[in-house]
Amino acid sequence: MVENWKKFLMPYEQAVSELKIKLRGMRKQYQQNNEHAPIEFVTGRVKPIDSIKEKMQRRYITEDLLEQDMQDIAGLRIMCQFVEDIHEIVGLLHQRTDMKIVEERDYVSNVKPSGYRSYHIVIEYPVQLISGEKLILAEIQIRTMSMNFWATIEHSLNYKYQGEFPETLKARLKRAAEASFMLDKEMSEIREEIQEAQQLFSYGKWQ
Amino acid sequence: MVENWKKFLMPYEQAVSELKIKLRGMRKQYQQNNEHAPIEFVTGRVKPIDSIKEKMQRRYITEDLLEQDMQDIAGLRIMCQFVEDIHEIVGLLHQRTDMKIVEERDYVSNVKPSGYRSYHIVIEYPVQLISGEKLILAEIQIRTMSMNFWATIEHSLNYKYQGEFPETLKARLKRAAEASFMLDKEMSEIREEIQEAQQLFSYGKWQ
Amino acid sequence: MVENWKKFLMPYEQAVSELKIKLRGMRKQYQQNNEHAPIEFVTGRVKPIDSIKEKMQRRYITEDLLEQDMQDIAGLRIMCQFVEDIHEIVGLLHQRTDMKIVEERDYVSNVKPSGYRSYHIVIEYPVQLISGEKLILAEIQIRTMSMNFWATIEHSLNYKYQGEFPETLKARLKRAAEASFMLDKEMSEIREEIQEAQQLFSYGKWQ
Amino acid sequence: MVENWKKFLMPYEQAVSELKIKLRGMRKQYQQNNEHAPIEFVTGRVKPIDSIKEKMQRRYITEDLLEQDMQDIAGLRIMCQFVEDIHEIVGLLHQRTDMKIVEERDYVSNVKPSGYRSYHIVIEYPVQLISGEKLILAEIQIRTMSMNFWATIEHSLNYKYQGEFPETLKARLKRAAEASFMLDKEMSEIREEIQEAQQLFSYGKWQ
Repeated sequence: MVENWKKFLMPYEQAVSELKIKLRGMRKQYQQNNEHAPIEFVTGRVKPIDSIKEKMQRRYITEDLLEQDMQDIAGLRIMCQFVEDIHEIVGLLHQRTDMKIVEERDYVSNVKPSGYRSYHIVIEYPVQLISGEKLILAEIQIRTMSMNFWATIEHSLNYKYQGEFPETLKARLKRAAEASFMLDKEMSEIREEIQEAQQLFSYGKWQ
Repeated sequence: MVENWKKFLMPYEQAVSELKIKLRGMRKQYQQNNEHAPIEFVTGRVKPIDSIKEKMQRRYITEDLLEQDMQDIAGLRIMCQFVEDIHEIVGLLHQRTDMKIVEERDYVSNVKPSGYRSYHIVIEYPVQLISGEKLILAEIQIRTMSMNFWATIEHSLNYKYQGEFPETLKARLKRAAEASFMLDKEMSEIREEIQEAQQLFSYGKWQ
Repeated sequence: MVENWKKFLMPYEQAVSELKIKLRGMRKQYQQNNEHAPIEFVTGRVKPIDSIKEKMQRRYITEDLLEQDMQDIAGLRIMCQFVEDIHEIVGLLHQRTDMKIVEERDYVSNVKPSGYRSYHIVIEYPVQLISGEKLILAEIQIRTMSMNFWATIEHSLNYKYQGEFPETLKARLKRAAEASFMLDKEMSEIREEIQEAQQLFSYGKWQ
Repeated sequence: MVENWKKFLMPYEQAVSELKIKLRGMRKQYQQNNEHAPIEFVTGRVKPIDSIKEKMQRRYITEDLLEQDMQDIAGLRIMCQFVEDIHEIVGLLHQRTDMKIVEERDYVSNVKPSGYRSYHIVIEYPVQLISGEKLILAEIQIRTMSMNFWATIEHSLNYKYQGEFPETLKARLKRAAEASFMLDKEMSEIREEIQEAQQLFSYGKWQ
């Protein structure tokens, strides 16, 4: 396997750190303009070595194609309050000149059979190394908090059952996905009311 | 009004910083033991001066009673995946010797008419100042992510309408509260499955 | 004066946050390669509004020229162990494609009469705002820790006396500058020994 | 060896995080009172496993005595501008009720033959674990920035030569120690001037 994982992953670590600062900066600008921020919070991670290895096997990805074929080694997540915010964020990302969007997958309009909803964007991002510039791929997932909640849970169950869920569990997960969808729908309906209200007061930022 | 707000709020700022580190430390211990962590994430804030002043007026709190009568100047929030986690956290807080619980309000068992659910604990916490030790009050709110989602929204609407919601909005908020409650309920039902699954793999920590 | 300082300073805040992450990243790469890092630590700040106003008056800078004539609204400092490291860092900055060097002032070779030593680089840096890209200026100061120590102190005295030092103080500051210079010189002489030694062991990173 | 190092070190990690927040809080209080802060900056680290093992062998420390005999597994460093600040900090630490001082070593008054200067305090500090309270030992080193500079360098050389320095290197290190001492002395002499000056203006905090 890759002889020096730490060295291999370093540009990805750097990209995740930079992108977190950049995406969180977008949130601050909205807050400063006293407008509804389409971003609630941003998280990121570099894929753990074990997961990379497991995915290489599962997807038949060879080492020499790792950088270009595994697009989520660097991962960012943007959580938002409303489904409508997702598209606003996508627009903002398209407009940036410090990254290049190379792929988009809209599982919000096209819900996966499992119930999974999320908007995925793959970007090409230049990292400045002491040995020069390097382009890497990173995946940005954009979702409401309720989508995120469900997805986190499905992800760990998936891992356990390798996609082969017992029927009862499958049914329950489905019901949870529906409750999550419902919550997003109810929220969207009072969205304009909420956004007006949020402009009125700057709540102490919980962070 | 309090002549020097910055100075007045300093011990609260310090307490919030310390308590965030302490509560997040609890999460790390579970993760290290490879057990389900009853804590998803922790946030904190010091109440903004404007909100303090507004609450002083609304609740007829005089300056000399501010420290003892306004219990949420320092505020911490612990978010968890399952309703069941809330009681585990309460137990852990009771056991700590670096804080003293002085009040508990259980709006999880006793849902507010508005639909608000959350567990509130008020603690007395010693801060070491350069002028010596000072005891301050802090409020810790414990809730699921779905309770938190709803509460954030209700809080901003409440602020706009001062509790006097139009009937349609009231009805919609209620429906959202029900969707939130349902989501928690569905999650609880697959809780044991999820917890087992989460022990199997350490997902890359998104942070 | 500038009608909305918070809004005016926001791109500078964002640039300082991003540049801190980027410059600290350079340090990490050296550490990972187990090579002597020419960077000990990095700090940054946005110039306080009061200092901006004071400097505008002192230098006759009008508001409409503020962005281009005041080059240190966004300020970064890179501290290093050895004088020799300074030039290595300058080389690294030249090579980056995410910033453009627009000015260099070498007060290391050309010590100021006061005894001030430091290497200043002014860069043009693109910040992505929600309203689009904006180019801003930022100043990067590169210095040894001993230069930094002296400079911090001279800066505060300068501020008090506005450059008009009493003779005794002037003489003392000068002696301190010489002690600082001497320390750097002695260190340079054992530099190769130290660098070899530092490659041998990764000391627990104090941070 | 200790079967699970990660688990063993966890309370030390937690203590270092908490103590950094607490010691940095002391600095903020001075700044807010607009007084000279005896603390410039604070760093911390948990001793790397390799260093622990190496020290166990060198000092004949057995595993069962590790917790009580190795006092610097958790280490904090407080850097200050003036030698005089060191004693002020010592006084502040004595006054705190959240830690207990169990040992003090004053290498500032009693410079080590090598030239090493620093003030060491060993404290007993209670960490709240999910399994209950645990008392651990931590070492706090207090030094001027110039002492720190020299000590960092001597530490790495020491490691390389295991204390058996070649004569020329020994002589050079000694000269560097003298330059460091001189710098501190010159600084002390203009200390009152500097402290007055620092009260006049709040420089933009570089951090």
